[in-house]
Amino acid sequence: MKRALFAVLTFGFVLTFGGGATAQSVDPLPSWNNGKAKESIIEFVVKVTKKDSPDFVPPNERIATFDNDGTLWAEQPMYFQLLFALDRVKALASQHPEWKEKEPFASLLKGDVKGALAGGEHAMLDIVMATHAGMTTEEFEKLVKDWIAIAKHPKTARPYTQMVYQPMLEVLDYLRGQGFKTFIVSGGGIEFMRPWVEKVYGIPPEQVVGSSIKTRFEIRNGKSILVRLSELNFIDDKEGKPIGINSRIGRRPIAAFGNSDGDLQMLQWTTAGKGARFALFVHHTDAEREWAYDRNSSIGRLDKGLDEAQANGWTVVDMKKDWKVIYPPAKR
Amino acid sequence: MKRALFAVLTFGFVLTFGGGATAQSVDPLPSWNNGKAKESIIEFVVKVTKKDSPDFVPPNERIATFDNDGTLWAEQPMYFQLLFALDRVKALASQHPEWKEKEPFASLLKGDVKGALAGGEHAMLDIVMATHAGMTTEEFEKLVKDWIAIAKHPKTARPYTQMVYQPMLEVLDYLRGQGFKTFIVSGGGIEFMRPWVEKVYGIPPEQVVGSSIKTRFEIRNGKSILVRLSELNFIDDKEGKPIGINSRIGRRPIAAFGNSDGDLQMLQWTTAGKGARFALFVHHTDAEREWAYDRNSSIGRLDKGLDEAQANGWTVVDMKKDWKVIYPPAKR
Repeated sequence: MKRALFAVLTFGFVLTFGGGATAQSVDPLPSWNNGKAKESIIEFVVKVTKKDSPDFVPPNERIATFDNDGTLWAEQPMYFQLLFALDRVKALASQHPEWKEKEPFASLLKGDVKGALAGGEHAMLDIVMATHAGMTTEEFEKLVKDWIAIAKHPKTARPYTQMVYQPMLEVLDYLRGQGFKTFIVSGGGIEFMRPWVEKVYGIPPEQVVGSSIKTRFEIRNGKSILVRLSELNFIDDKEGKPIGINSRIGRRPIAAFGNSDGDLQMLQWTTAGKGARFALFVHHTDAEREWAYDRNSSIGRLDKGLDEAQANGWTVVDMKKDWKVIYPPAKR
Repeated sequence: MKRALFAVLTFGFVLTFGGGATAQSVDPLPSWNNGKAKESIIEFVVKVTKKDSPDFVPPNERIATFDNDGTLWAEQPMYFQLLFALDRVKALASQHPEWKEKEPFASLLKGDVKGALAGGEHAMLDIVMATHAGMTTEEFEKLVKDWIAIAKHPKTARPYTQMVYQPMLEVLDYLRGQGFKTFIVSGGGIEFMRPWVEKVYGIPPEQVVGSSIKTRFEIRNGKSILVRLSELNFIDDKEGKPIGINSRIGRRPIAAFGNSDGDLQMLQWTTAGKGARFALFVHHTDAEREWAYDRNSSIGRLDKGLDEAQANGWTVVDMKKDWKVIYPPAKR
């Protein structure tokens, strides 16, 4: 195995002996610079997939979980789901004349996002409920699909689905090629992710765990529907992540990928299992190609997580040094 | 297609053109007598899997959901999970001297199950919480595994995992062979099913939806654990089934299998989708080989469901007529 790793680092190719019967000589992570982070991923995968390895894990137990915001796609200048909500507030404003006088909507409609969010969690919840509830699940799915198809990022002008990290797409593909089942475990809304993640990440809707609001079953005009209610169901963040993983997946992951303190408990839960385990934080260190933030950021704060990663020998990706590219080539 | 179905009925073999490239000449449902029920299953599967069919459904959307109690395994004389709980009450009694005076435990410990359950939902909840909460998720998993390995059914003396329906095991296998993803959607406890369903049904833990209690994340002696709390999280029954399906799977099934009014909303939700849909009720009509019950049963009541099935042309399995055998051959 060490020989294979040496080959990766020296010649840029790797021998893997995992899911397939034949050795491959293709670098599974071409957008990663050679170094500790890349080496640690490949070393782990080889270790758990090689048949005669003492750390071999059968395919049905090869569960890998990924945070979404800041781990699979960007999360600056704010969570993309919040940008969706702001666009929805604008679209709905004509139906809500009262919003002109009512915070947080009044500030939002004047373009003062900071002022609107000064109301903290309560303001955020008002915005989410006003834009994410009150319609059927099918109607909401269509709103998300329509938005994600045309909305552009304020800084890069890329569609949001092209603000995903190419090196992480390669990790997803690599793991699946080695018999892993890949899941998203995100603090973001589950119904905001499901309409597009299968196409973008190759992760089907049934492998998405996220935050959610409640729904009500109704028969309307003889047809059964689910109506989205203004009531929180589950917050899939921090302690919520292992709880959500246990509830939704029912199996402890053997590998977990995150980027913030909101992912810390998921990494703790994952690595507390028996046998070989893998934990990785994406550290946003690239102010030029992406963003640089960690201990003091209000979005995606990585503080305790950095300390625990060091103490436990988890992998920390230095985005600037470890990634050859950030985003996939632009598509039209 | 009609020709293939004719072949099934006449010669007992079938040509399918689904997931695989080559035609098969093996009866996929050998424990089913020829007749409408068997024909309807095969007709549906051929229709959605044949590449040039107007009803073709791509593999990633081939979601099939199965109720568990009364649909995949028996549920008489009472839900098997309740029998597990009663055994746990006996095992825990020495640690709870107060139970001798306290209902519903006092009656249970005297062997008076009926008297204990006379307390209705409240009594049932007391029993569940006393036996299903207060330990870690790992500890509970072990309790279930240990019990299911040795407990025997009071009437048949079979292990509970051999009280599963052979004809339904064949449906599960047939669907998966044709590219379907099979899920359990049960009113039963999710953590009571997960420890054994992969081995028995070939359904992995992450494809189980069920009722659940809340858990709490804790770091105990430096190790992260989840503690099971005496608080309901979700009841996956009736209206809860479509809600649970939407929340956990995030895709509407194209086929749903149940046996009681508790499954009715799942079948309504499934068949309300666009394109070809399939809905089936197992009707317990076999007092000799299994049990006969429907409109007036307190367990697994099938009343409204029978009417809706007739009105909508859903498949109703007449267990006595349609199934050659009920259980798999006895194993030692």
